[in-house]
Amino acid sequence: MKLRYGMVGGGEGAFIGAVHRTAAAIAGNWDLAAGAFSATRGKARASAAAIGVARGYDSWQEMLAREAMLPAATRIQAVAIVTPNFLHAPVAIAAMEAGFDVICEKPVADTLDAARAIAQAAQRTGRRIAVTYTYTGYPLVKQARVLVAGAGALRRVMVTYTQDWLSRAGDLENNKQAAWRVDPKRAGEGGAIGDIGTHAFNLVEFITGRRIESICAELGSLPGRVLDDDASALLRLEGGARGMLACSQICVGDANDLAISVYCDELGLHWRQQQPNSLRVGRRDAPEEIWTAGAGQAYLASDVRAIQRTPAGHPEGYLEAFANIYRAFGEEVLTGKRADGAPGYATMEDAIACMKFIHAAKQSSEAGTTWTRLDTLCLNTP
Amino acid sequence: MKLRYGMVGGGEGAFIGAVHRTAAAIAGNWDLAAGAFSATRGKARASAAAIGVARGYDSWQEMLAREAMLPAATRIQAVAIVTPNFLHAPVAIAAMEAGFDVICEKPVADTLDAARAIAQAAQRTGRRIAVTYTYTGYPLVKQARVLVAGAGALRRVMVTYTQDWLSRAGDLENNKQAAWRVDPKRAGEGGAIGDIGTHAFNLVEFITGRRIESICAELGSLPGRVLDDDASALLRLEGGARGMLACSQICVGDANDLAISVYCDELGLHWRQQQPNSLRVGRRDAPEEIWTAGAGQAYLASDVRAIQRTPAGHPEGYLEAFANIYRAFGEEVLTGKRADGAPGYATMEDAIACMKFIHAAKQSSEAGTTWTRLDTLCLNTP
Amino acid sequence: MKLRYGMVGGGEGAFIGAVHRTAAAIAGNWDLAAGAFSATRGKARASAAAIGVARGYDSWQEMLAREAMLPAATRIQAVAIVTPNFLHAPVAIAAMEAGFDVICEKPVADTLDAARAIAQAAQRTGRRIAVTYTYTGYPLVKQARVLVAGAGALRRVMVTYTQDWLSRAGDLENNKQAAWRVDPKRAGEGGAIGDIGTHAFNLVEFITGRRIESICAELGSLPGRVLDDDASALLRLEGGARGMLACSQICVGDANDLAISVYCDELGLHWRQQQPNSLRVGRRDAPEEIWTAGAGQAYLASDVRAIQRTPAGHPEGYLEAFANIYRAFGEEVLTGKRADGAPGYATMEDAIACMKFIHAAKQSSEAGTTWTRLDTLCLNTP
Amino acid sequence: MKLRYGMVGGGEGAFIGAVHRTAAAIAGNWDLAAGAFSATRGKARASAAAIGVARGYDSWQEMLAREAMLPAATRIQAVAIVTPNFLHAPVAIAAMEAGFDVICEKPVADTLDAARAIAQAAQRTGRRIAVTYTYTGYPLVKQARVLVAGAGALRRVMVTYTQDWLSRAGDLENNKQAAWRVDPKRAGEGGAIGDIGTHAFNLVEFITGRRIESICAELGSLPGRVLDDDASALLRLEGGARGMLACSQICVGDANDLAISVYCDELGLHWRQQQPNSLRVGRRDAPEEIWTAGAGQAYLASDVRAIQRTPAGHPEGYLEAFANIYRAFGEEVLTGKRADGAPGYATMEDAIACMKFIHAAKQSSEAGTTWTRLDTLCLNTP
Repeated sequence: MKLRYGMVGGGEGAFIGAVHRTAAAIAGNWDLAAGAFSATRGKARASAAAIGVARGYDSWQEMLAREAMLPAATRIQAVAIVTPNFLHAPVAIAAMEAGFDVICEKPVADTLDAARAIAQAAQRTGRRIAVTYTYTGYPLVKQARVLVAGAGALRRVMVTYTQDWLSRAGDLENNKQAAWRVDPKRAGEGGAIGDIGTHAFNLVEFITGRRIESICAELGSLPGRVLDDDASALLRLEGGARGMLACSQICVGDANDLAISVYCDELGLHWRQQQPNSLRVGRRDAPEEIWTAGAGQAYLASDVRAIQRTPAGHPEGYLEAFANIYRAFGEEVLTGKRADGAPGYATMEDAIACMKFIHAAKQSSEAGTTWTRLDTLCLNTP
Repeated sequence: MKLRYGMVGGGEGAFIGAVHRTAAAIAGNWDLAAGAFSATRGKARASAAAIGVARGYDSWQEMLAREAMLPAATRIQAVAIVTPNFLHAPVAIAAMEAGFDVICEKPVADTLDAARAIAQAAQRTGRRIAVTYTYTGYPLVKQARVLVAGAGALRRVMVTYTQDWLSRAGDLENNKQAAWRVDPKRAGEGGAIGDIGTHAFNLVEFITGRRIESICAELGSLPGRVLDDDASALLRLEGGARGMLACSQICVGDANDLAISVYCDELGLHWRQQQPNSLRVGRRDAPEEIWTAGAGQAYLASDVRAIQRTPAGHPEGYLEAFANIYRAFGEEVLTGKRADGAPGYATMEDAIACMKFIHAAKQSSEAGTTWTRLDTLCLNTP
Repeated sequence: MKLRYGMVGGGEGAFIGAVHRTAAAIAGNWDLAAGAFSATRGKARASAAAIGVARGYDSWQEMLAREAMLPAATRIQAVAIVTPNFLHAPVAIAAMEAGFDVICEKPVADTLDAARAIAQAAQRTGRRIAVTYTYTGYPLVKQARVLVAGAGALRRVMVTYTQDWLSRAGDLENNKQAAWRVDPKRAGEGGAIGDIGTHAFNLVEFITGRRIESICAELGSLPGRVLDDDASALLRLEGGARGMLACSQICVGDANDLAISVYCDELGLHWRQQQPNSLRVGRRDAPEEIWTAGAGQAYLASDVRAIQRTPAGHPEGYLEAFANIYRAFGEEVLTGKRADGAPGYATMEDAIACMKFIHAAKQSSEAGTTWTRLDTLCLNTP
Repeated sequence: MKLRYGMVGGGEGAFIGAVHRTAAAIAGNWDLAAGAFSATRGKARASAAAIGVARGYDSWQEMLAREAMLPAATRIQAVAIVTPNFLHAPVAIAAMEAGFDVICEKPVADTLDAARAIAQAAQRTGRRIAVTYTYTGYPLVKQARVLVAGAGALRRVMVTYTQDWLSRAGDLENNKQAAWRVDPKRAGEGGAIGDIGTHAFNLVEFITGRRIESICAELGSLPGRVLDDDASALLRLEGGARGMLACSQICVGDANDLAISVYCDELGLHWRQQQPNSLRVGRRDAPEEIWTAGAGQAYLASDVRAIQRTPAGHPEGYLEAFANIYRAFGEEVLTGKRADGAPGYATMEDAIACMKFIHAAKQSSEAGTTWTRLDTLCLNTP
């Protein structure tokens, strides 16, 4: 029994739409039944045909309206949103109001207010919503969370996320993926801080199981760019731990280098997304340990073992991490029950923390790099 | 337009069947339409239900017979074989004779004669057949082949494939996967040499583009085991290059460690399956280069770039490599044309070379580690 | 013709004294002729005997006085200072006033004022002084400086230096090396920030060839400790580049993990002290390069090649890096000429920049993590 | 109290002589008192002056004769031999007969018979002799030996030693180091097999604590070369373990890549000379462990800890490994007692095993790659 879903966005040429569809296919419990794959009428239908989806619609409004009228056994049950950020909120809210659960690409919205509106709609309608912070879908990230939970007080966190695809002046013009990501009207107020900084932020909160309380940040960008493409921040976490976060899209030579180190009383651990199947664990006066992912890997937590498809030494990757999010949310929608163990996906609460981070980073930087609390940000952000 | 296929074997508890199904789902051009998932009647149907396949059959014979009678637009077009080795030949031959193309798990058969019978059946029926030597599906393995082709004379090859899942005396009894793999009646005459040695062998032939002409081998096993679980061999390749191959399933601490080094006049290259997205390339008097996989990675060969789903830094893994084999073979079956560039899958010719390797390794070892040519092996092997 | 030197400090049980002596032996142009190895009378002589030095003195004052009266062909020409920080200035100033050149362990003094007094003494007496910031003695650190100089504008620097030897509450009491390092009277106002933070700071300035202009820092420590054992800082460099620096001695599992990433317009480079013979260099749309240390390594800058003792693949280490500083300074003292290429040792100017860093870090942290300029620190620091 | 030694060979332009002298300086218990640094009269004295040795002689015969007549408190006590291989035996035998202990570069001689003559001279004269198989001087190689000794039965060994400095046709002519190494009159019957293959062989015997009983080898070389530059061998060890060994000097891109894997009942371990301070240890169903070198590293064997100069994270390298051999042998000569724990240097017995390996490899290869026992090699080798 699979979950029928309709996709909004993700037509030809889009990167993340195809990723969502493949992830859903790997998950095995989703069935792509409908789609409004583009805001451009002709392109929407053409993409539907190319993708091989029976019910292709001209617009997301049409999709929601028409699907809602289909018989329960046929109509979609959930909507996957892979549009530019500014469309997340209108689509998500309308989808939930039309009775569909929602799985939404990150960041969950272009502004903090929009994110809050989604959260309110979820509460109002009783619908479920997951946000795809991919990297927490990796098995060893979940294992890291388990290890940290049992390792005494948290001391220090260092996370860096660096890319180079915007490292040249002309990259904004030449790259289709860049166009909306660097336009505040479509991306929101965050550039790199929103696009990848929130991944780093969410990864810290996930692994440590603690909220980041305040940040002290500096944002920058290459000449002529409106949004930040490079940012650094000091962090203070619940319970007193300190940390640092950097994200940048102008770091020449780095493809997609997300790396995190977390230190507790009893251990330090290190994970790097580009080699996701290894987790380095350091202890005082003992050999460093390399924990390795794998189905059936006896020393991993049982819920970490359970989500893997291949035994140790048969590497899983980005798409499988993404699939883990789809599978967990799909399972929850289908059964109405959340699985045990580490959360299987980012909730609205997590996603709103990320939105606060974007806003606080900007505010801190504009105020000359001052400590800015995330929990006291006023509701009516510009 | 997807290729409808039926699976033989791969019911509940089997490892490789689920891998094939997921690979086909990632490939995107295959549709699982039928299955005879087990040799045990009740289990076959139960597995079909669990997997969610509409047309579950009690036996592969029934599947072939019944599917052949369905309308062309409905019936399966290809058969995926994921049974223990000794069943490959009967199923493959019957499938081709019933008009279906075949994709078959490696090694292609339990004996060299059985493999030759499959090849003859393919020729007789005009059907296509692919053998899933997974590791040649990795993008950087294909890139390695491109690099070697342009690097002058081949000098030396070293390949090792080590695992530890049979490293304890009791592993044969305790592990379901082990049962048939160590039984000569079901696995064939090779133990480790067949199960993983042929992967190493095929990888050498694929990357170098040359056949291995002779080997000089020693096989061994832990006390009480019938088939080899550990083997070493010296290699001589077409054109005069030399090499070494080791495979073992008793190497404590190694999960699935397939690693290869190839040296030519102009460069040396190194690839390790457990970190499949990096290819080390060494040149004289120059910094070592780390080639990194990724869709759109400008410096990779165009057909290598084309088969990837995610940009550099978003790691693909074992399932995607497997999917590349499914996609290439599926495309060929659907269009009748083979894609340009590196071969997308292992052919019967490749698969028979692997069978000769198993046989020659055994023969060489039994004769006291003597050089044994692969091309003069007599037809009527025991 | 070797440079005769006398050592102050470094008696039995001290870590860094033996390192200096071995480094001088590897350098090959130094000759240990005298020593006042301890502030404890009996221990000084005993250490001299154990070390095998002919002229062992009871105190550094005695050594300076007595050596100055020896014939020119016999008496020491330079003094190596390896005492706790608070003694650096008195010994260095007295040594220079007695006519000796000085090589001094870092940080050059316990306070910024003391450092300035040393600089003034050097100017007054015309003596030379080198400070042993070890890590800039590594060949590939020098190569990194060459690469950065030719790589366009500097963009971002990230440096972390983490250890775990003070990670437990009781470490201060149990570790002889810790005793003076965590006592502000003997170490100065910086804890980790002075002991290892200045290494990280100096490494940034050396590789980039730019001064760090301002920092925005937060210092912390485990309960009950007077000096910091953990610090984070944002950095602004001359010319507009930004960066981050972290140093900590409570990072469980990390032995001595100094790592730096530097990004310019044309490349990004990465070096880690624990694997000092590799330098990763990333470029846009090209394979990553691994530059490898080695005498005769054709692609390295000639002055980088020249300082190495063994060919590529024969790893040099920490002691050889240290020896490079001794050799360069020794050569300069012996010949009166400074070698071409990258500076061979940290000068008083470099060392004072490090002292300003300690002071500014403390000041910034106490002021609530505010940007603090290094060049406007007032002279009369507490 | 230091051991006074005289060096034979190692004048200007020689690689290994300077390495021995630096190693002795790091060891700290050796004092270079005399030398006959070249077979060319003028060059010998010039080198002595350049190196700064008081007693430079025109020939090793002169050195032995004249030193023997000096007072006991002045004359050398040991001779370090760093000439081309064919001179090792005459110098070593004469030195021992003149009453000096000997430390000799590997391989200990050019022929097996010459090696035996050295052994007989040692027995006859009662002098001590050490052979500098450098790589067993690394702390983690000693730790590996300790681990293997406690890990149950030995199963499999794989060792490879690859370089590229002879990878081009013209390298013999253009490289001073190559000249004698590829001339059978000066190097002996082994090319790569003697120069680096014996290192690999000795490393296996050291770590496993077992002799290699038989080998089955194939040697090769680029066109026009008299001696082998590339070799592969299967190994059988005492007690039944199997293995493989490869050595080659034509492996493009490899500087000095000596790597070994050893598998026992309880663990597998992996060491690579180019990153000598890490030892990977794999166990079944447990995270891989990275053992790290360092003085004071609590989990290392006490005699392994004791030979290190710097704490974990301060890398030691090739010269320190070499110095460990000098220190151990020097200590033994000075005190007349051998230290506990792993042997500190290769004995004549070890060195003769290496000579047998060279001879057996050649014999096996010429006989068409047949198993050849090392213990039954006849005395009168050609």
